[in-house]
Amino acid sequence: VADDANGPKLVALSSQECWELLGTAKVGRVGTNDDAGPVVIPVNFTVDGTDVVFRTREGGLLSQAAGWGRLAAFEVDRIDERREQGWSVLVRGELRQAFEDDAAELGPKVVPWAGGDRPVVGRIVSSSITGRWINHS
Amino acid sequence: VADDANGPKLVALSSQECWELLGTAKVGRVGTNDDAGPVVIPVNFTVDGTDVVFRTREGGLLSQAAGWGRLAAFEVDRIDERREQGWSVLVRGELRQAFEDDAAELGPKVVPWAGGDRPVVGRIVSSSITGRWINHS
Repeated sequence: VADDANGPKLVALSSQECWELLGTAKVGRVGTNDDAGPVVIPVNFTVDGTDVVFRTREGGLLSQAAGWGRLAAFEVDRIDERREQGWSVLVRGELRQAFEDDAAELGPKVVPWAGGDRPVVGRIVSSSITGRWINHS
Repeated sequence: VADDANGPKLVALSSQECWELLGTAKVGRVGTNDDAGPVVIPVNFTVDGTDVVFRTREGGLLSQAAGWGRLAAFEVDRIDERREQGWSVLVRGELRQAFEDDAAELGPKVVPWAGGDRPVVGRIVSSSITGRWINHS
């Protein structure tokens, strides 16, 4: 199907559609860099306005090695491998740590499945959001 | 469950387990950087030895903006949002373009669902592979 003009097409999503789709998912993937280059790490998340909020470990990759203030991407998709269709959304922005009242309010809204103590609340403050849908029309 | 000592745990996977799990998936996510920072992009892929092979568009983000020779990550996961369990694997390495015979041999092994002409065959030459499993024991 790859080069078939009547085959599947990538269709761009509006930013509103992208935010709506983000709201339907519980897991996304943070892309950022540590000293050895890019990393992509799945996290439970929630949306707060136009920020992506997640929790992580003290000293974990997302809090220490990656570093607050670094640029980050956040990707969510829902892909059906059998039907070969789905959508993906990409948020780009900056990693920021949430402090005190902010963290106390947001932390309980994100429950990490992975267990362990994950007291650090992080935000990706978005600067852009884009998405696409693989459309079998 | 987040802070429950009897709750889910992250269990590290061996590199052999990681490669086996990669072999069961058709879609993964390339993490790399363009001039504006990190990006994470889903692609169809196949494994060739210890490389991840994918196809992309001429001049597309993965071929031009990201640039061959750049460091990259490649993430695959299978996450069950209802059962709150799953696994993820992270390959780290370098983006390289496949040329001529190599591309001619590998290209047909990766059929992108997204349609359009995707003649550029790329490899992520792995330098490390790690993975984890969320274990509800």
